This record gives sequence, structure tokens and C-alpha cells, in this order.
Amino acid sequence: MTEALVITDVTPRDGLQDATGFVPIEDKVALVEGLVSSGFTHIEVTSFMHPLRIPMLPDGDLLVPRVAQLSQYLVALAPNIRGVERAVAAGVPAVMLVASASESHNQANLNRSRTETIAILAEAAHYAHSQGLRVHGAISTAFECPFEGSVPVAQVAEMAEAYQQMGIETLNLADTLGTATPRMVKERIRVVREVTDAAIPLGLHLHDRQGWALANVAMAYEWDVRHFESALGGLGGCPYAPGAAGNIDTERLVAFFEAQGIDTGVDLDGLASLRRQLLSVIAKRLPAPEKEAS
Amino acid sequence: MTEALVITDVTPRDGLQDATGFVPIEDKVALVEGLVSSGFTHIEVTSFMHPLRIPMLPDGDLLVPRVAQLSQYLVALAPNIRGVERAVAAGVPAVMLVASASESHNQANLNRSRTETIAILAEAAHYAHSQGLRVHGAISTAFECPFEGSVPVAQVAEMAEAYQQMGIETLNLADTLGTATPRMVKERIRVVREVTDAAIPLGLHLHDRQGWALANVAMAYEWDVRHFESALGGLGGCPYAPGAAGNIDTERLVAFFEAQGIDTGVDLDGLASLRRQLLSVIAKRLPAPEKEAS
Repeated sequence: MTEALVITDVTPRDGLQDATGFVPIEDKVALVEGLVSSGFTHIEVTSFMHPLRIPMLPDGDLLVPRVAQLSQYLVALAPNIRGVERAVAAGVPAVMLVASASESHNQANLNRSRTETIAILAEAAHYAHSQGLRVHGAISTAFECPFEGSVPVAQVAEMAEAYQQMGIETLNLADTLGTATPRMVKERIRVVREVTDAAIPLGLHLHDRQGWALANVAMAYEWDVRHFESALGGLGGCPYAPGAAGNIDTERLVAFFEAQGIDTGVDLDGLASLRRQLLSVIAKRLPAPEKEAS
Repeated sequence: MTEALVITDVTPRDGLQDATGFVPIEDKVALVEGLVSSGFTHIEVTSFMHPLRIPMLPDGDLLVPRVAQLSQYLVALAPNIRGVERAVAAGVPAVMLVASASESHNQANLNRSRTETIAILAEAAHYAHSQGLRVHGAISTAFECPFEGSVPVAQVAEMAEAYQQMGIETLNLADTLGTATPRMVKERIRVVREVTDAAIPLGLHLHDRQGWALANVAMAYEWDVRHFESALGGLGGCPYAPGAAGNIDTERLVAFFEAQGIDTGVDLDGLASLRRQLLSVIAKRLPAPEKEAS
């Protein structure tokens, strides 16, 4: 039987990591609380990348203890064993590991080669499991790379196999740039399923540069993918992926499923007011616009 | 073997029938010429509905003779035998018949019941065939109706069967409102195929109210639908369908297919300049904005 739909809102992590205005911790707490009261159980709450690499999210260690009791399905991004240690200390029950399918983006994002990354993630996954955490894996640039263009499917499959050996629970294919097409989605689902155990559910983490993300969702859903990630207001992007678009918009994704009679458990009105609140916080934090020369 | 992709640009008909500014015949000729030089062979050039019903397109009888030699795949909408007579006299080689799946929209759009419409279309199809024209059929409100809401699939199937008996060459399901979802698309494709001959290719005529049209295209393409209609600038709408959105945008549709390595034969640069030209013509014809009360 195909499993139920799971939408993970990644606003607190991906939505804010590349924001132009810094969001104070009180507003981050309110955001996670708001997502929970709108019906979300699966939320990516923060990143335990080094704060020098992701300056907008230096406060995961303080944020997690304030929201950890809200859901058992919170997850935090962790790039290595140090990230997992912070996740354990903060009390988040799951980590999302990350590596890229393309060499150049992996270097830009994680500052090391893919081979080194796999070794480091394997160690991180082992430690996370020993601490009772659930471990998820994400493959960045699983479609196209900002530096290399189209990414060979074989490299995606290679990373998927590496993740499987780490004992991950779910595997996300990330369209970091927002240029994936339904044909690419279908091909990657097929190839990744060939090399991984059927017990590992696939998910899609989509950005949306050209309005194709919902078409990709439709194609993936048609081929029994049930895990999707999205962010409020279509916020988000990778500071190390020039040209990347924001995430697929959570409200659009929810409305798209609901219109098809696919229950999301999410209250769209609550979500809309939460989005307005968040955008006003970000707007307040933006530098004042420069005056035009007269 | 699945047939090749066919995009029919319907800008001269659907794009202009509900336009706020009247487009003079010289500009209509230029539009059709521009579509042909951008690579289109399939173009819906006009409507032979009564000019009192579609006042923006009173000039099909004059337009067709000026463009008929440009492609053998031009088509004109015809609601009855009078429409077909005008199509024959003007020299267009194919007609698109139209009827709605929902009773209220059929009444609003064609001013008669569905049963009466089927009889009238059968007569029109018979006459068109006797004159050597190709006959296509379109089912309006095949998904939702502005007056009745969701339209039972059985009514779509009923109309499909009636069209099949008229000997149509292709059958279009029209999302008149722009609210179809991939799930609805898949269901209708399945049901209509059950009641019609496999030799009649299905097509989709999509409007796009919520950014779901490309997802519908992806789903239909996945299920071997190869005929799609679209309009430049996302223009279009039905004057008898309150709340209807514009057609799916031709440039977006072409780009979406091309990105997937599916050849459209269309030159996107030429199309962009044609769209700018058309929108400037329409803008010039708009009434001057009213002055605000001071």
C-alpha cells in the first residue's frame, strides 16, 4: 500500500537560511509554533551547519529546546558529526544529512569533495543512530548544478547507494536550482529506486524557478512519491547556489493537494496569516532602501 | 507508437474572443502570420459563432481567406451548420465543434440544451464532412462548471460518445474555468478512452487560474495525450463563463516541453516578440482609464 502524504515545512531552515533580513529567535519560535497550530507535524526547524557558513541560523541550539516538545517529527539539518552532536544536545529527534550529486556544488556548499562527504556523513549517521536519532538523507543538485549544468543520473544513484549504507529512513532528491522537469523527476525516481531498498521512501525537495514545481509534484505523486518539502511564501534558496529560486510555496502545495481530495491536515487560513506575519518580520529587518540620486 | 506532440495556438480565437480591446483585422492577419513564422502549423484562427454572441470576432469570413494558404492545419470554431457554411465559404479546412458537459454552461454559451446541441452538431459535422472538411470536437466545462461546480465524469463520457458518432478526428477536453487538477485530468482521460475509439486522439484545452495547468499538462502527457491548446500571453476566457481564467500561456507551454527535450518546432524568441506586439495592439484599443474623482 502506498503510504500517506507527508509535507515537511522547511521554512525555519531553508526559508530563512538565505533570507535578506535576520529573523530573531522569538520570531523563529513563533514560526514553528504557528506551523504546528496550522497542522504541521513535520518541520525542518534549523540547520546545524557552522554559523559562519549559514549566518542566518546561528541559534538552532537555543531554538530547538523551545520547540522540541511540539512534535515528534521535527528535524534539523546536520552536515557532519559536530552538527549531530549539537542536534543531540538541543534535543531534536531527527537529522537531515546533506550531500550534493555534483562535485562543484558539494565543494561550494560543504567545502569538501563528495567522497570525503560520504565518509563524514557515514560517521555522523552512525553517531546519530547510537544516540537514538532518526536519520534522513538529502541529495542536493540531484537535477541540475549551478556550476556544472545537468547532473548525470548515475551520480544521483551513487549518492543514494551511499546513503542507503548509512541506514537512512527517507531519501530526498533536491532540485536546488529549481530547474527540474517532470521528465527528469520520473527518470530519477526510477533510477534511484533501482539501487535502493523499497523500504526507503523517496521525497522531493523542490525549488521553483519557472512555475514547474507543481508539475514535478504531480509527476512524483503519480509515481508514488509521498514526501514533499516546501516553505512559506516560497522563501528559501541556497547561499552557495547562485541563481537558485525559492522553495515551492507551502500554501500552493497544500492547496494543490487538497483540491485533489488528498488530505494534508493543514489549515490554509492559519497558514496564510502565519506567512503574512513572517514576511512582515523579514521586511522590518531589511535595510532601508537607498535614496535615489537626485 | 505514441504520436508526436501537437500544440494548437488558439490566440486568434480564444485569446481574442474575450479581450477588452477589439483587435482590427490587419492585426489579426499579422498575428496568424507571426504564429506561422514562429513555427506553428496548428492554429485556431477564428470563431464562426454569431457576431452578436462573440462581438470581438465578427470578421472570420474576411480573415480566413487572407491566411488560409499559410497552413493546412488551420481550424475555426463552429457551433452549428451555419458556422460550418461560413467556414466552407471562407476556406478553412477544419472546424472545431463545441458543446459543454454541463447543462447550465451549454445553455449560457450556446443558448440551448445539450441534447439539442448534440443534434445540431451532428448535422453540422455531417455537412462539414460532405464538404471535405476535417471535424474536431471540444467538450467545454469537462472539469468544472461556473454554475454547477464539479461536473460528473459520466456527462463528459456521454458527450465524448456523441462526438464519436459524428466522426470527429480529435477530441478536446476543455477546462473552461481553469480549475482542473492532475487527478481530474487522469480520471477523465481514463473514462473517455473507455467509451471512445483509440483512433481518436485526446487533447487538452486548459485555462490556468491557479498555476496548475502545467501540472495537468504533465499528467496528460504521462498518459499519452499529445494535443494541447494555448494562447499567447495567457490571453483568453469565455464571455459566458464568469470567473474563467486565461488560457495556458503558449510560451510557457513551449518552454516546458522544450526543457524536457520534447520538440515543439517553435521559435521562442519569435513568439516573445509576437506576444509583445499583440499586447501593445490590445492595450492601444483599451478605453482611456477614467479619471479619479477629485
